[in-house]
Amino acid sequence: MVTYSFPYGRLVYFVTGNIHKFFEARQILAEYNIASAMLKIKVSEIQDDDIENIAKTGAREAAKTSGLPVIVEDAGLFIDALNGFPGPYSKFVFNTIGLNGILRLLGNEQKREAYFKSVVAFCNSEGTIKTFSGIVEGRISNKIRGTGGFGFDPIFEPKGKVGRTFGEMSIEEKGRVSHRSRALRKFAVWYKKNYKF
Amino acid sequence: MVTYSFPYGRLVYFVTGNIHKFFEARQILAEYNIASAMLKIKVSEIQDDDIENIAKTGAREAAKTSGLPVIVEDAGLFIDALNGFPGPYSKFVFNTIGLNGILRLLGNEQKREAYFKSVVAFCNSEGTIKTFSGIVEGRISNKIRGTGGFGFDPIFEPKGKVGRTFGEMSIEEKGRVSHRSRALRKFAVWYKKNYKF
Repeated sequence: MVTYSFPYGRLVYFVTGNIHKFFEARQILAEYNIASAMLKIKVSEIQDDDIENIAKTGAREAAKTSGLPVIVEDAGLFIDALNGFPGPYSKFVFNTIGLNGILRLLGNEQKREAYFKSVVAFCNSEGTIKTFSGIVEGRISNKIRGTGGFGFDPIFEPKGKVGRTFGEMSIEEKGRVSHRSRALRKFAVWYKKNYKF
Repeated sequence: MVTYSFPYGRLVYFVTGNIHKFFEARQILAEYNIASAMLKIKVSEIQDDDIENIAKTGAREAAKTSGLPVIVEDAGLFIDALNGFPGPYSKFVFNTIGLNGILRLLGNEQKREAYFKSVVAFCNSEGTIKTFSGIVEGRISNKIRGTGGFGFDPIFEPKGKVGRTFGEMSIEEKGRVSHRSRALRKFAVWYKKNYKF
């Protein structure tokens, strides 16, 4: 494995086209002295009800294409009353029907439980692959609140933060409880243990 | 290429787990004296806004796995007022929010234009790949009508068939105008021309 002359630790490449995702990841990884860079390459996403398979396939492909140690993260919002919709297709659903579409689908529904799930897949040029998942439970708010975060953040209230959505939190506050940060922390602990630097 | 001792023509394998899709395809192909069989193998579907890529990837994989001449068909419902939702993810959307979800999203919206698109990808064991597409324009009905067809058929009224949904039509009637039949007819004409039998 190539070693990089970075101020701290080795460099992991976070494959995404989403700058918000990368900023969140960089923040968490830095806590563990792991340096990260955003790698914007196109990897194929499979259609699968299990986001772990989506992340894994992407990481394998990205590591093969780039020859670099990479992370691919896939996440979805799963709403109980909508049978897990929008799930693995959250990005497409966000880009088409948006936040208002979700609120309209739920209407006056009282059962608004939902969770975000994130899977982080790490793969290096030798083909070592490992996945880590994180979940945050919560509920869908009655209206859009806040402009922070991205995607469905302004309609998701994590448990224990009554009445506040991810959209109303700073990146640091979201990072303390989010699905993505939970998955990344698991990765970071494993990575530091297995890749000494 | 292997020749099969079938009453008419060579056999094409239609890869699907959806028996309704297969029945529709068999009906159309039979008009062209092309025999078809349903092949139920799992092929990976990629996430792509273009269903042509989804069908192509699937056909290539299915032909490679089976060594048979195969068809993979992918289709989607694209609703103008919802920015093309549910599009390539129609099956997942149908299984989660269903017909009522679509009607709820549209509400009293007057702009109800939509179209179904089908792409048929043919691939044989030599890796020859060819795609054919078909579109049917129409609108989303105000309520669910009919029990025929499958998927979103009971809320889709094709143009020229005022006030009747695909769900209210027989398989023959739907086959005269549907997206799938249009793509399959193009395939059939090409296949008969290029694979003499």
